[in-house]
Amino acid sequence: MARKSVLEVDARALRRIADGGAVLGSGGGGNPYIGRLMAEQALGPGKTVPVVPLSEFGDDELILPIAMMGAPAVMQEKFPSGREIPALVAMMEQLLGRKVAAILCIEAGGLNSTIPFAAAAYMDLPIVDGDGMGRAFPELQMVTHTLGGIRATPMAMFDDKGNGATFDTISNKWTERLARALTIEMGGAAMVGLYAATAGQLRTCLIHGSMSMIYRIGELMEEHGAGAAKVLAETYGGAVLFQGRVRDVARRNEGGFTRGTVVIEGGGDFRRREVKLSFQNEFLAAEEEGQLLATTPDLITLLDSNTGAPVTAEMVKYGLAVNVLGLPCAPIWRTPAAIELVGPRYFGLDIDYRPLGA
Amino acid sequence: MARKSVLEVDARALRRIADGGAVLGSGGGGNPYIGRLMAEQALGPGKTVPVVPLSEFGDDELILPIAMMGAPAVMQEKFPSGREIPALVAMMEQLLGRKVAAILCIEAGGLNSTIPFAAAAYMDLPIVDGDGMGRAFPELQMVTHTLGGIRATPMAMFDDKGNGATFDTISNKWTERLARALTIEMGGAAMVGLYAATAGQLRTCLIHGSMSMIYRIGELMEEHGAGAAKVLAETYGGAVLFQGRVRDVARRNEGGFTRGTVVIEGGGDFRRREVKLSFQNEFLAAEEEGQLLATTPDLITLLDSNTGAPVTAEMVKYGLAVNVLGLPCAPIWRTPAAIELVGPRYFGLDIDYRPLGA
Repeated sequence: MARKSVLEVDARALRRIADGGAVLGSGGGGNPYIGRLMAEQALGPGKTVPVVPLSEFGDDELILPIAMMGAPAVMQEKFPSGREIPALVAMMEQLLGRKVAAILCIEAGGLNSTIPFAAAAYMDLPIVDGDGMGRAFPELQMVTHTLGGIRATPMAMFDDKGNGATFDTISNKWTERLARALTIEMGGAAMVGLYAATAGQLRTCLIHGSMSMIYRIGELMEEHGAGAAKVLAETYGGAVLFQGRVRDVARRNEGGFTRGTVVIEGGGDFRRREVKLSFQNEFLAAEEEGQLLATTPDLITLLDSNTGAPVTAEMVKYGLAVNVLGLPCAPIWRTPAAIELVGPRYFGLDIDYRPLGA
Repeated sequence: MARKSVLEVDARALRRIADGGAVLGSGGGGNPYIGRLMAEQALGPGKTVPVVPLSEFGDDELILPIAMMGAPAVMQEKFPSGREIPALVAMMEQLLGRKVAAILCIEAGGLNSTIPFAAAAYMDLPIVDGDGMGRAFPELQMVTHTLGGIRATPMAMFDDKGNGATFDTISNKWTERLARALTIEMGGAAMVGLYAATAGQLRTCLIHGSMSMIYRIGELMEEHGAGAAKVLAETYGGAVLFQGRVRDVARRNEGGFTRGTVVIEGGGDFRRREVKLSFQNEFLAAEEEGQLLATTPDLITLLDSNTGAPVTAEMVKYGLAVNVLGLPCAPIWRTPAAIELVGPRYFGLDIDYRPLGA
């Protein structure tokens, strides 16, 4: 069946996707520089992967998300090999008793937007133009699939040594608990296949168009460099929330996550002000003296003030000049069920969600 | 096919097996009192499970060990239900692509000698007269199957909440690492099926006759009560190594195991002497002022001096009067490869293995 693609992704396009993915990654989703290097490895000369809208797939066709799970600092050392991906897809096809029609990106990110393309290239499959978050989130159950009643399991998992595991759990939260424990034991990162669903099941809960949006963000960044933060805010209904220099970073690896805080001292229009960002892989909230500038599920992203390049929570360093960009989350995340799943209180923050700019 | 059984186990016989299993359990393998209660539940009136020698099975017939994995203190709260066992066997049969002919007990113990009978009763299958240790050991790779080159995986695992997982690992040590991490996350104990092998593969590495031996030990204990320690030592080539009162117990739950030490102050012939036992689920060594009385893989077991009942490392308490019984391990454990797998140095003890009585 011939499907109409909206984009044919080659290595150059995939580098843009790594950058655009890192912006939507909200501080998580992996290092975009490593993502760019991986892009070269995944898509050699002449090789392309088509990005195809969900509407091009029949109701019964199976869409399989492939991702890397783990602490971003470890993930970047473990690019999926030609061995893990076919093993993973074969295991999922065996568990499901049917063939996969397309690969899905489960979250945006410098790495996690790139890895599904590597998988699609290895398997000669298309990528669906959509994803399960429209951003990155730290825990497995935090996908629109959960809101749509789709189970995380059957799930398959492989580490870089060749160990494999599968799960069949009573809830997506239990999938997170068990898979997280195993990821830690596997050395901190693993390749996973999960949330397999038919195109029919995904029509109402998938975040549509996110791969082409990520690509477009990458293009705008290439075009505007240091001016990208302002352009992205204008294009996507967000705002440059703050601008300044990183004064303090506290970062710890804990429970398989990278957690901590970043303090930024204002410069330019923000002189004499100070903002604190908290993160669990992704930025969770931006606060100024008790006043909330933005909070999860809205997106909080750092861009280097001098180059416009995205800066993840893992990369942020003392002295770096940054723009704090706020972008609105996909509308599905603003429902009460979604706020319970990914809102600030889930992460232990004593604040209520208030939509960006409200 | 009619197979000749050496024993038809009913609830009463299973109570003896719980007691005899606890003696070979060497301080681990679960609480025999709970094992006795479970025996009643597993084998109702008129229900029996045949114990059949391996020689009664054809080379190609599949023998599946079923066990409970975890910290003994937690295991005793989670008796396998009628739901977990069929799910576990069905999962293993699906992974292996064939039917199971018999259930195997993987280790001796007050609980782990009882649980396979519950599984056999639920599944209407016989139990093989043998096991993979001839005692209990704390880690998954510590079975004679490993010495025989049999892989632990495919392995299936279910918790009492209904969560399931399977493993396919690069070594039996990796199976231990991954399954242990998941057991902890599942609440400390889980039902497992693993080390599936054909009767042909097991002929040279199985410890033969251990179920009938365990039953016979249970009979001798019933018959001799407080005198059982002496009778067992004489019958099985062991020795009553020490006798006295427990003066100190240090016990901690760590990494999914129960670890610690027991100090016993001598009485009777052992007056003015003192022995220290170290354990990781099972007793690892008995030492008297730097002199070694016994060490893993030989068996070290405590029996209540007043009743003759087995006392596990989990049950031992300040003030209890006990006999320390040493029994020789199965000969296969005295080979250099076996000592590397289960000898004192593996457990971090700075002593060399010296066979009991040598």
